[in-house]
Parts: sequence; structure tokens; C-alpha cells
Amino acid sequence: MFEAALARAAEDIGARLKVVLAPLPDQPVIEAMRYAVAGGKRLRGFLVLEGAALFDVPRSRALETACAVEAVHAYSLVHDDLPCMDDDDLRRGQPTVHVKWDEATAVLAGDALQTLAFELLSAPACHPDPARRVALVAGLARAAGARGMVLGQALDIAAETAPEPLALEEITALQAGKTGALIRWAAEAGALLAGEDPAPLASYADALGLAFQIADDILDVEGCETRAGKRVGKDAAAGKATFVSLLGLEGAKARARTLVGEAEAALEPYGEKAQCLREAARFVIARDR
Amino acid sequence: MFEAALARAAEDIGARLKVVLAPLPDQPVIEAMRYAVAGGKRLRGFLVLEGAALFDVPRSRALETACAVEAVHAYSLVHDDLPCMDDDDLRRGQPTVHVKWDEATAVLAGDALQTLAFELLSAPACHPDPARRVALVAGLARAAGARGMVLGQALDIAAETAPEPLALEEITALQAGKTGALIRWAAEAGALLAGEDPAPLASYADALGLAFQIADDILDVEGCETRAGKRVGKDAAAGKATFVSLLGLEGAKARARTLVGEAEAALEPYGEKAQCLREAARFVIARDR
Repeated sequence: MFEAALARAAEDIGARLKVVLAPLPDQPVIEAMRYAVAGGKRLRGFLVLEGAALFDVPRSRALETACAVEAVHAYSLVHDDLPCMDDDDLRRGQPTVHVKWDEATAVLAGDALQTLAFELLSAPACHPDPARRVALVAGLARAAGARGMVLGQALDIAAETAPEPLALEEITALQAGKTGALIRWAAEAGALLAGEDPAPLASYADALGLAFQIADDILDVEGCETRAGKRVGKDAAAGKATFVSLLGLEGAKARARTLVGEAEAALEPYGEKAQCLREAARFVIARDR
Repeated sequence: MFEAALARAAEDIGARLKVVLAPLPDQPVIEAMRYAVAGGKRLRGFLVLEGAALFDVPRSRALETACAVEAVHAYSLVHDDLPCMDDDDLRRGQPTVHVKWDEATAVLAGDALQTLAFELLSAPACHPDPARRVALVAGLARAAGARGMVLGQALDIAAETAPEPLALEEITALQAGKTGALIRWAAEAGALLAGEDPAPLASYADALGLAFQIADDILDVEGCETRAGKRVGKDAAAGKATFVSLLGLEGAKARARTLVGEAEAALEPYGEKAQCLREAARFVIARDR
């Protein structure tokens, strides 16, 4: 059930982003934007669509918000991959944007993808009520900016040159910003679209986001490069503290399982309707990429 | 009158941005954001404040929008100065962000400044009516993104490696995106805040923005590095087509004067109230930095 729903979300989001970007001029920076938003797991967009489905928000409407969160995620990956950041040449099994084009194009394509997210949320197709749209804009800005994703990213970079590896609480705070804030907003967005209380979905997402990151660290140790579609073993090679280095491989796996239980428990108010989200929580620690 | 109004705008915007950024954690990326938004002419923010004053929008409210446009402008400068883009080490007489910190911090600080702009526009302090706020978000996203500022920036970079220098209409289109779109939105924002027709202000801004860019090209030839606070003569050295190379120095000056006349004419509906904006148009071609 979950895998089919994720595949359907990926298909719908990919198709909609293609349509959104189609009218733009065929300049390299636009080609790079199209390239950067093509593919990926679409887990954040899936969370938007499934969250919206809990409240019977029309899927076509929720799709705009799902595309917005995927645009922000894609922008963060493009900038994250830059030589001055993580310096990755491979993403989803393909050359990264700065490798396929150049660094300037990667900087600009990332910039414009962030802008695109706010353009999507502010358009009437996202929701007919401007108050709902502006609430989405405000929430995404908080999640993506200097209190959320960018702060987490900056802390991650600072950790690389820190004299001591991070402690568990520091790395947890770092990840809450770097990946957690956007995942939380994605999960909340459906409730925001419906004008409902997003609190249970926020709890779900906080547990899910942390489990996701722990799973990433486990994957970095155990993963296979071909299946992951990106370089693995980089963190260990760089001597960075990870959940695995701090908790041990088995400890990290146990912690991830506990978090999945917490995520599932948070969904209780939604009953059967949340089955797909429950399965998603189990998936993030079972995935191989 | 204009110079006092510009100085007051700069002071108010600088003070408000300080307050906005004060609660953020004292991380290098936040320090870099504070550094990047400190100083500058604040012409775009001034346009917001003066446009809003035409319609008696409270200044404290318009200030939020003025800060948003200055945050976007600052983000674009930080990214523009990066080694992979214009590779500038000096901005407003000070080391650029990537020189003072590093490239990763400059990328992230720019990213978060863009996000901050949308956060400011989506908050109730910007305007109590969510419909007005979301209209501002939509307009800024269009102006800053892949149809506006970023596209102009990308065209500018492409021009550097083009086999032929750009023709006049190409460079005009490039500048309409690179600097024109944000200047237009800044001028329109006051009308958007007031729920009035922004068309006359858009015409004013289009003439002003182009005059501003022609003046920049003139300054690049005639300017003094110390007063400009940035490297000058770079475009000529790079063999790039500019308004001066295409129209000649005197031709460029004549074109700028004509545009200033057009800008002034567009302000006719606003009578005496627009005196400061009229003077601003004259200023952009008389400035020395």
C-alpha cells in the first residue's frame, strides 16, 4: 500500500513540476532546475499528499504544496552538493548540477527553486483562501530558513571543523534543523490546507525525521553506492560524529525502531486513514537508499 | 529632500533588519546574514516606503516590505559576489561575505536571506489582510525567480562566454530581469499594500531601473573605486557589452536622461506627493556609486 502510494505521489509530483517549469525559457539555468527536480524519493511530497488526504483535501490542490516542498528539498540538495559544501559529484545516480553544468548555474538554479516554492504556495491553485496560502508560506519560510534547514546545514558544516565530534544532543538538534524542519512542515501542510490542528502530524514527523536521519547514517555505513545513487561511507571517512558513531550500529537501529513506534502512535487520532503514513515510518528505517 | 528621505529609509530599514535578525542564534551563518544586510543605498527599500507613502500606508507597516526587498537584494549580492559568479572581494568598501567567512557560509547566508524575505511578507506585521500579504509574496516570487532576477543573472553569466557581445535589445532584456524586476516590484509594493493600481509605479520603475543600470555602466567606466566601494572597470576589462560600449559614453548618458524624463512623467497621477520619487530618478544618473 505504502509503496504504491509513494510511487503515485512521485509520478504526480514529477508530472506537475514538469508542467510548472515547461513555460520557462530554455536557458541552462532552467534546464538545471528541471533536472534537479526530476526524480528522488518524493518522501516530503508524499507526506503532504497523505496528510492532506486525512482531511479530504482535494489531491490536485495538495499537489501544489507537495511540489513546493519538493522544490525546496531540491534546492537544498543542489546547494548542498556544491564543491564548497559537501562536494558531491553524484546524486540519485546522476551527475550533480554543478558537474553537469557549472557552479554558477547550480547556485542560481537552487536560488530559483527556492523562489518557485513560494510562487507555488502563493498562487490560488494552492488554496482558494489567501489566509491558508499565507499560513503555508509562513510555515515553509520558518522551516527552510535561518531557524530551520539552513541553520541545521550550517551547524553540520561547522561540525566538520569542530575540534571535538558532536555529542548526541548536538547532532539531534542539528538534524532537527537540517532535515527535520522541512519533513515536519511537509507533514503539517495537509492540516494547514484543511484548517485543522497540525499537532499530531508534527509529532509524527519529528519522530519520522529523526528515524530517517539515523537510517541515513546506518546506510552510510552499510549501504551500497550503486543502490544509494550517491557516495557512501563519506561521513565515517571524514571522522564526523553520526548516530552510528555515537550509539553504535545496533544502538542506532534500536533507536530508529523506537522512533518508528512513536511516529505510529502519534497517528492514532486518524485511525485507518493514516495506514499509509504508518507504513512510511516503517519504510524509512528499512530502505536501502 | 530626496537625500534626507533616502537616509531616513536606510536608517529605518537597517534598524528594523537588526531587530528581525537579533533573536537568531549567534552562528557564523547568522552573523553573515547580519553583515550582508547592513549598509547599502537601500534604494529598493526607499521605493517601497515612498510608494507606500503615496497611498498613506503606515510607514511601520511598509517597513516590513522594505526589509523584505532589501533581504532579497542582499541575498542576490552575496551569491553574485561568489568566486563562481562575479568573483568580487569587495562590496560597499568591505570584504564580501565569502572573503570574510567562506563560500559555504556565503551560499547559506544568501539562501536564508531569501527565505527571510518571504517570512517577513507572510507575517501579520506586513499587512493585517492575508490577501494583501499573499499578493506581495506572489509578486516578489515572480520578480526574484526564474522569470526575473535569477534569469537576468543567468543571462548575464551566459553573455560572458558568448562568442559575440550582446546587442542592445538583448542587454536591455537581461537588465530588465537582473535589476529591473526587483526594482519594479519594490516600486509597486506600496500600491499593493494599499490595494491600489500599481501600473503608474511600474512604468516609473521600468524607466528608473534601466536608467540605474545605464548609470552603473557609466560608473564602471568613469567611476572611482574608493567611492564606489567595489571594483570598477571590470566589465570593460572582460570585453562585455555594456550600454556604454553599445551607445558610447555620451549616447548612454543621453539615454539615461531620457529615461529619467519618462520616469518623472509616469508619476504625474500622484502630483506633489511623488516629489521624492521624482528626485530619486534624477539621483540614479547623478550618483557616484
